[in-house]
Amino acid sequence: MTQNKPNSLLQIQDLIDSNLEPFVDANSITPYLAQPETKKSRKMHNDLKSAITNVGLEDGMTISFHHAFRGGDKTINMVMATIAEMGFKNLTLASSSLASVHDPLVKHIENGVVTKIYTSGIRGELADAISNGLLKEPVHIHSHGGRVHLIKSGEINIDVAFIGVPCCDEYGNANGFHGKSRCGSLGYAKVDAEYANKVVMLTETLVGYPNHPASITQDRVDAVVEVDEVGDAEKIGGGETRLTSNPRELLIAKQAAEVIDKSGYFKDGFSLQTGSGGASLAVTRFLEDKMITQGITAEFGLGGITSTMVAMHEKGLIRNLLDVQCFDAGAADSLSRNPHHIEISANEYANPSSKGAVVDRLDIVILSALEIDTGFNVNVITGSDGVIRGASGGHSDTAAAANLAIIVAPLVRGRIPTVVGQVTNVVTPGQSIDVLVTDHGIAVNPERSDIREKLIEANLPVMDIEVLQQRAEILTGKPEPIEFEERVVGYVRYRDGSVIDVIKQVKA
Amino acid sequence: MTQNKPNSLLQIQDLIDSNLEPFVDANSITPYLAQPETKKSRKMHNDLKSAITNVGLEDGMTISFHHAFRGGDKTINMVMATIAEMGFKNLTLASSSLASVHDPLVKHIENGVVTKIYTSGIRGELADAISNGLLKEPVHIHSHGGRVHLIKSGEINIDVAFIGVPCCDEYGNANGFHGKSRCGSLGYAKVDAEYANKVVMLTETLVGYPNHPASITQDRVDAVVEVDEVGDAEKIGGGETRLTSNPRELLIAKQAAEVIDKSGYFKDGFSLQTGSGGASLAVTRFLEDKMITQGITAEFGLGGITSTMVAMHEKGLIRNLLDVQCFDAGAADSLSRNPHHIEISANEYANPSSKGAVVDRLDIVILSALEIDTGFNVNVITGSDGVIRGASGGHSDTAAAANLAIIVAPLVRGRIPTVVGQVTNVVTPGQSIDVLVTDHGIAVNPERSDIREKLIEANLPVMDIEVLQQRAEILTGKPEPIEFEERVVGYVRYRDGSVIDVIKQVKA
Repeated sequence: MTQNKPNSLLQIQDLIDSNLEPFVDANSITPYLAQPETKKSRKMHNDLKSAITNVGLEDGMTISFHHAFRGGDKTINMVMATIAEMGFKNLTLASSSLASVHDPLVKHIENGVVTKIYTSGIRGELADAISNGLLKEPVHIHSHGGRVHLIKSGEINIDVAFIGVPCCDEYGNANGFHGKSRCGSLGYAKVDAEYANKVVMLTETLVGYPNHPASITQDRVDAVVEVDEVGDAEKIGGGETRLTSNPRELLIAKQAAEVIDKSGYFKDGFSLQTGSGGASLAVTRFLEDKMITQGITAEFGLGGITSTMVAMHEKGLIRNLLDVQCFDAGAADSLSRNPHHIEISANEYANPSSKGAVVDRLDIVILSALEIDTGFNVNVITGSDGVIRGASGGHSDTAAAANLAIIVAPLVRGRIPTVVGQVTNVVTPGQSIDVLVTDHGIAVNPERSDIREKLIEANLPVMDIEVLQQRAEILTGKPEPIEFEERVVGYVRYRDGSVIDVIKQVKA
Repeated sequence: MTQNKPNSLLQIQDLIDSNLEPFVDANSITPYLAQPETKKSRKMHNDLKSAITNVGLEDGMTISFHHAFRGGDKTINMVMATIAEMGFKNLTLASSSLASVHDPLVKHIENGVVTKIYTSGIRGELADAISNGLLKEPVHIHSHGGRVHLIKSGEINIDVAFIGVPCCDEYGNANGFHGKSRCGSLGYAKVDAEYANKVVMLTETLVGYPNHPASITQDRVDAVVEVDEVGDAEKIGGGETRLTSNPRELLIAKQAAEVIDKSGYFKDGFSLQTGSGGASLAVTRFLEDKMITQGITAEFGLGGITSTMVAMHEKGLIRNLLDVQCFDAGAADSLSRNPHHIEISANEYANPSSKGAVVDRLDIVILSALEIDTGFNVNVITGSDGVIRGASGGHSDTAAAANLAIIVAPLVRGRIPTVVGQVTNVVTPGQSIDVLVTDHGIAVNPERSDIREKLIEANLPVMDIEVLQQRAEILTGKPEPIEFEERVVGYVRYRDGSVIDVIKQVKA
């Protein structure tokens, strides 16, 4: 239907001085509505190339991915291989994080397909290569909340977001908890879908319209492609989220639970996040007994959600689970089953420039560390050899916001001290850390004398962090200083966008 | 905790040439995190004045409201009285719609508090006054989808959104289907919460954190105020959404159901929206029998959702309800009860510049008209006296997008013809309308000869629209032309932002 122009009273002179345009045609900005045969399927593409062409990817653009599948992700490698094959160059890759499964990126950097990277973490060959100077421009390491801040402030301007999901309908309504490879929460992808100029959904299963609940809704999606696999749900826990049976980790976890118990923050209605390290996760186990004995329930458990958290939720010990990312298949399944297991976006989770992140209301967070120094500064990004091997994640976000930020870490790892005089790289500033729990004792930030007093009163082995550092040095010997080149290979971005540290190229 | 600066390796020279800022303090952009006593309650205000002051309202700004309570709304009058008392002037009011309950706005316009208005509809004294020249600048009448387009394109730049809800927690997580005065879907408010610079929630009930499901999430909310009442849920249907017992309306509805049946679009998996007029709503009743007899179920029912729709959903006849606004209390309650009764935003519903609105997938819409002319142009904004008395609503959005747009209307209303030679004002262009069903016969848009043939074959009383117009004129006599001043008092904005018509000042 066209040409049947309204015989309105509209006279052009009525619009003079108004800066308004007169009506032309009912479908001026919606030409697809004039094609009833194709309008419902207009977003569907037979293959990825067609979708990439359709959304107008160009050299020099920024593309994004989510990391909900962690080590099981299959989307980034698939999309990057296609993009490379199509001949695109000079792209900025803004994945919410990267894992060792993404080693093929080394080749794409060598070939000039990718020239700049934003990510929360890097591991494996890619991390090695970047530490050795592979990228011309330093990699930007951001926190999970900080990434959203960089997107909202315009520094990360996503041209095309590629979002791998287990299920989606032909208009783009998607979630991560139905279908075959269920990653659970799409907390990071939600932000990309909201801010990207163009959004391509890659789905394992095309389901009937309307797909609900929709974590990402159709009004955010430009193109939909059906693919064989977007990820391996068995690997979303990676190696990092196992429940430990290591006696030393269990000892630390038990001690951390004691700290929480006596800290003054362990009361009915408290809230909790645990990181993804072994000891950190094990704390939950020991807390459970205390919660039952003392008749305490938690208002919410936050963060990467694990099966342990789900079990406590289903026992009524944690009333709500606020979930930006599922750390195992049990959590992903719970998200579709438990009405108070609630999916939140990374903006809701931890963005410091959101109007109120959940971390702002967090009482207790348990975090790990590769290194912590006598200023309580924490390194979770580089190893003792100075090579990148970790992730910023929600570390600085939760530490800054929580009332009680506890680091759990062994005093030494083999011949390597964890408590040091100065960390190789700072990810989380010491001012955000309240307590360090090691297998050799507990140290409290001097700024938190209130907590220190409570723990001493409870007969916990509190000592100065310098004592722990010296004990570590006795055990490992004074480590040789790492030799670096002058060249900066990475910026560690604090959650507010500032640079809290730089990562230098390691000497070959 | 402050001053415990990280002893990082960071050297200022490492940032030269990077345009990046060095880290200063963990809470540089989150100063509230350094106040653990108040950080959870920091959005709460004891009264509306405090919230208004806190969000920084200034003269000349744009404020917004949603119309989910329709004739039962109590938020706009309450907020405007406070704003007037505080002495603000020259504000632009961008409510998603206005009803006759908002007559007190006349006073605020006279006093210079409000000088410009965007709305889908106006009724009562306010409409009369505006038609008589009350506003210095013409009122902008937009469609529901067009409003989102104007917001996203920046023409409506909301400085402060005031959102009345039945329940909300202290951080702003809110929905419309729990609490006392339940309006149900917050489809319009969701858009305001997303785009407004500042968002103030007015809630009848302050509930425990985290309030879920959250139609509006905490990361969109700046301030929360507890108030006695935000609306009267009994009136969300207004006078417009009753189920008719008028025999003429029932006749029209029955005929419209026949048209649908024979149109070629009535098949399993079809989708449907009904407007809020009596005959329009009654069509659903007659369709129900046909669906049962023919074994047809609908994929979705869209739009303002009614109890009639809910009943069909619960019988399994309509598989999903996509709900931007609840038209009665039964619908609001269903939203909290039925998992496939799904709340959608106005962007998802009908924005022509969204990446895919639900209306785009709509098969059949049944709409009303104050006037329709021989070019099938429809007027739903001004009465036969030229005075504003209606609302654009989703009329042009759904008509443009649906495969079959049916107008149901009596040929004449008392001494006033509905089918006319030229409508007083065009809201929906004739090219979007497919069929007119009156109590005197059925007319099909000449562009849709396919439908015309099907209806004739089914022995339905199809005639040219000119015949209907002439019959109306015989019944009512030739109406006197309305006398207007030259002055424009309203712009009728088409969904793409263009002006499809202007409303002239009526002669006093």
